[in-house]
Amino acid sequence: MRNCIIASTSTLYGSEPLEYLKEALTDLYSDTEEILFIPYARPGGISHDEYTIGVNNIFKKINKRIVSIHMFSDTNEALKSAKGIFTGGGNTFLLVDQLYRNNVIKPLTEAIQSGTPYLGTSAGSNICGLTMQTTNDMPIVHPPSLKTLGIFPFNINAHYLDPDPNSTHKGETRETRIKEFHNLNPQPVVGLREGSWLRVKNNDITLEGNLKARVFEQNKTPYEITSGSSLSELN
Amino acid sequence: MRNCIIASTSTLYGSEPLEYLKEALTDLYSDTEEILFIPYARPGGISHDEYTIGVNNIFKKINKRIVSIHMFSDTNEALKSAKGIFTGGGNTFLLVDQLYRNNVIKPLTEAIQSGTPYLGTSAGSNICGLTMQTTNDMPIVHPPSLKTLGIFPFNINAHYLDPDPNSTHKGETRETRIKEFHNLNPQPVVGLREGSWLRVKNNDITLEGNLKARVFEQNKTPYEITSGSSLSELN
Repeated sequence: MRNCIIASTSTLYGSEPLEYLKEALTDLYSDTEEILFIPYARPGGISHDEYTIGVNNIFKKINKRIVSIHMFSDTNEALKSAKGIFTGGGNTFLLVDQLYRNNVIKPLTEAIQSGTPYLGTSAGSNICGLTMQTTNDMPIVHPPSLKTLGIFPFNINAHYLDPDPNSTHKGETRETRIKEFHNLNPQPVVGLREGSWLRVKNNDITLEGNLKARVFEQNKTPYEITSGSSLSELN
Repeated sequence: MRNCIIASTSTLYGSEPLEYLKEALTDLYSDTEEILFIPYARPGGISHDEYTIGVNNIFKKINKRIVSIHMFSDTNEALKSAKGIFTGGGNTFLLVDQLYRNNVIKPLTEAIQSGTPYLGTSAGSNICGLTMQTTNDMPIVHPPSLKTLGIFPFNINAHYLDPDPNSTHKGETRETRIKEFHNLNPQPVVGLREGSWLRVKNNDITLEGNLKARVFEQNKTPYEITSGSSLSELN
């Protein structure tokens, strides 16, 4: 049993945080008013407390209350009894490091696999893949491992960006970086553009939102899939 | 004694690789015709052999010959006897991982500190800072440590990119990422735009090229320095 929304970003340009996901979230969290928040990614280096207060203000608008995992002494119990979970964005290295250091990897995986409604945005989506090796973030800490939850048998590249045909910049494009990843690692990568999300429901994985997504498989030409496409067979 | 060129990029848009550095390289390598190449970063996943052949073709034009470290059984001896060293760009995680696995960190540091002329481009420049934590690359491998050579007491951000004021993308800007780094790490970061390089000569470090560079210090507003400025006191 799985029941997840795996979103590229929390926020679309010119719109309030999570606004574009309002309907989907009301459906995802229909059975609970309280959501367990995982603030470890700390965008811009804000504190766990600040991040939690900000997220609570957003969820208030859909009549949900936030409790944050950093407030619990027993994180295992917090995850077991949660009726809904949200992992927010920020720095993926920091998030994964904290998941390991606080022994949250296993109970979080079990909670999601047993059907607890889960929302991930950005870094919170990256961790649902097999590894965090296709993050765009800087390695501001050195996590003990890059292995993540493996909720599905591929990796996510959040905030996927197409190469700019007019660019004179010689740094690697996102596509080149993913090609370098595939030179050493076999699993597919789903490039989710901002505004796209994956709806994971039991054995089904479907692309949602208005945009196409770009799929990268080892030794294959990358290809586009349209909204509504199934990714259930991708591995 | 130090004698290095630390360049943001090997190649400028619309120009041949290393062309913009031709004069500086002729000066740097004036005492040797043979240069020891470190190909570990393997851009785009090309092989060590392919990378070496390509680099040799470039250096031929300034009458230099390339030997690559991957061709030696005794890398320590290769570094000790080298009269010039070049580490090329590609993936910084892969480069650092290979430097550790091949026990090259210490002898490479010693060679550079003892005055062997050294050119780094992109990933090859990142490794001369205290850590590789301000790379833009994806963690396609998991190196045992993010600590690098520490030729100078700050970090490099190669291919530095200014925020695009017209962007609607909600992924982090380079400046935001460096701010997140500074939330957890104290050392300054020099953002080198493509076309800039640092000339390190004994105790002097000078910004070269036509562009300004952007300096990020912990708990300070980032600031610009002009070409010709000294970075000898930055720490």
